[in-house]
Amino acid sequence: MKSKAVVFRGENLTVHVEDTLVDPPGPGEVMIKMSACGVCHSDLSVTNGTLPLPPPIILGHEGAGVIAQVGQGVTDFKVGDHVISSFVNTCGKCRFCMTGRANLCDAATAAPMALYGGHVRTADASGKPLWVMAGCGVMAEYATLHENSVVKISQDAPLDRCALIGCGVMTGWGAVCNTAQVEAGSTCVIFGVGGVGLSAISGCVAAGASMIIAVDMLASKLEMARTFGATHVVDASRSPDSVKEVRTLTDGGADYAFECVGHGDIVAQAYGSVRKGGTAVVVGVARPDNTTTINTASLAFQEKTLKGSYYGSTRPRYDFPRLVNLYQAGKLKLDELITQRYSIDQAPQAFDDLAQGRNARGVIVF
Amino acid sequence: MKSKAVVFRGENLTVHVEDTLVDPPGPGEVMIKMSACGVCHSDLSVTNGTLPLPPPIILGHEGAGVIAQVGQGVTDFKVGDHVISSFVNTCGKCRFCMTGRANLCDAATAAPMALYGGHVRTADASGKPLWVMAGCGVMAEYATLHENSVVKISQDAPLDRCALIGCGVMTGWGAVCNTAQVEAGSTCVIFGVGGVGLSAISGCVAAGASMIIAVDMLASKLEMARTFGATHVVDASRSPDSVKEVRTLTDGGADYAFECVGHGDIVAQAYGSVRKGGTAVVVGVARPDNTTTINTASLAFQEKTLKGSYYGSTRPRYDFPRLVNLYQAGKLKLDELITQRYSIDQAPQAFDDLAQGRNARGVIVF
Repeated sequence: MKSKAVVFRGENLTVHVEDTLVDPPGPGEVMIKMSACGVCHSDLSVTNGTLPLPPPIILGHEGAGVIAQVGQGVTDFKVGDHVISSFVNTCGKCRFCMTGRANLCDAATAAPMALYGGHVRTADASGKPLWVMAGCGVMAEYATLHENSVVKISQDAPLDRCALIGCGVMTGWGAVCNTAQVEAGSTCVIFGVGGVGLSAISGCVAAGASMIIAVDMLASKLEMARTFGATHVVDASRSPDSVKEVRTLTDGGADYAFECVGHGDIVAQAYGSVRKGGTAVVVGVARPDNTTTINTASLAFQEKTLKGSYYGSTRPRYDFPRLVNLYQAGKLKLDELITQRYSIDQAPQAFDDLAQGRNARGVIVF
Repeated sequence: MKSKAVVFRGENLTVHVEDTLVDPPGPGEVMIKMSACGVCHSDLSVTNGTLPLPPPIILGHEGAGVIAQVGQGVTDFKVGDHVISSFVNTCGKCRFCMTGRANLCDAATAAPMALYGGHVRTADASGKPLWVMAGCGVMAEYATLHENSVVKISQDAPLDRCALIGCGVMTGWGAVCNTAQVEAGSTCVIFGVGGVGLSAISGCVAAGASMIIAVDMLASKLEMARTFGATHVVDASRSPDSVKEVRTLTDGGADYAFECVGHGDIVAQAYGSVRKGGTAVVVGVARPDNTTTINTASLAFQEKTLKGSYYGSTRPRYDFPRLVNLYQAGKLKLDELITQRYSIDQAPQAFDDLAQGRNARGVIVF
């Protein structure tokens, strides 16, 4: 099957829109006719080395579409089903899947640039194999995925918006509601309010936080944060000390902080912003060589917790439909996240807009 | 009341045994005739600046004794009651006390060198006021404490051993059973097996851990760790890479690591020793300027948790009697912790033995 796709070939910050070839699904696999794919910071991170995956590789890990073909032995999906891709395979059998931590599934981390089982179903026009990002590679007209990377959703939910649940929304919302399990009445601060940070705000609203403070360098993003439910904003480009400002607003430190940037300096700020006994959750993806430095004694004396959150601690088949339901009930903002739609031919522009911070979320619509 | 006490006057690593004066208890206070007081690393930390408290100050925060006098309004204690001192006051009213986190009580951190309410009931022979460590100062024949810093225990438990519950045992055992809440069948590693680390091993045994790995530089301590229940030991003075050794023993990383040293480098090792989704608990008290550096991306990608534990997340009036019960039921090792007993006049020797790593726990018996 011919399929136009967005490919990274190792040139710094450059993506190509190419005609590629997709094999029909093997056993346990499905082919999806993609409807939409969000352009996420992690896609950009592949192109700048923050997330080192081997080129040539088809990008995209935040997509939704319609099942076009099913492989041998697939019984959970049929042609026509609406689905969202998951960038972790969930085998359902390992200790992590069995204990409610499917986001850490052993199978997912085994081959982050091939399908479950190590298979590659994609090639460029000349027939040379192409890796796929995180078992997905859904920035393409068609994509063959293992069924363990696919989640069925309601037929009547809009696929272009539901695509965002596949990464950014799940990651931000889940960090609050799954990882941290914020209690009603808590005070929360979010560092970095792009797509993930805004979704973390949605999570804080859902959890009933009493105070939601957004910290960012861009006034436009802070304005958006207010739309999503931030009760206070701190413009870090103007504040001499954002941490101090947060600690003042919260009378000694927030109950929870969420770092949605991916940099040790901001992690340290998030950590510094929480009260004794508080929890700072690290959501952002940092460069492999980046480090976080914190005062050692503060850990024990203030009994603080620094906690990573991967993919919003998602159990995809449970959480994705849950988020779709919340959206359909008017309790999760997705429409407001999409600031720009692109055709696949406009993908390079979409990446550039992302790099320049012009979008909450840009979405490629097929 | 005249009372011989161990005083730190600001000279590096030096303590003095002095005749001091103790006031009778004020309202809400009690005077304790001390039976025993453990010599803890935190006492040493005051004398070397790791724990900066203002001299002149009476040391000791891990004591047990018998109520000798009760002040106005005290109804929970009567003369003759057996008690353990708690180095946090628990007011019972603040948000931390109300939510099961009494170890973080707001009142406790308000005046770490005076009694609850800021009172000072001690003076040297010339009448000059003496601070008391952590609201206690129980390395003395008599000590006046606020009732919020005192916990009643069974009359038939041996006070010299129960003294250790007041700090080291509670801190180590509680880090495992209260802070981390280790589940049966978990794999655990303990870095540093002095009094606190050995008590962490006791906690791991109580929690039903399947594998308990002790890491230390001293063969004698590792031998003791085995007595307490360690299933494996790693001699860090001989191992080229303790973290790797732990990861091999646990097939990819322990479920829980406990840092009982108080140094950023060891915290980083503890963090490196746990698997994805695992938890490293920081128990040790580091110098104020010490820092911990960890890889930022590992937090989110591996969804690891770095968690401080203060005083074993104790709720003293609940936990101290619980530990006494466990001891009396033969399920908590206290006798084995005490490697040396001293008279108060031998206190300088006890501090020196501690500094040289000669003791699991030394106890001054009055």
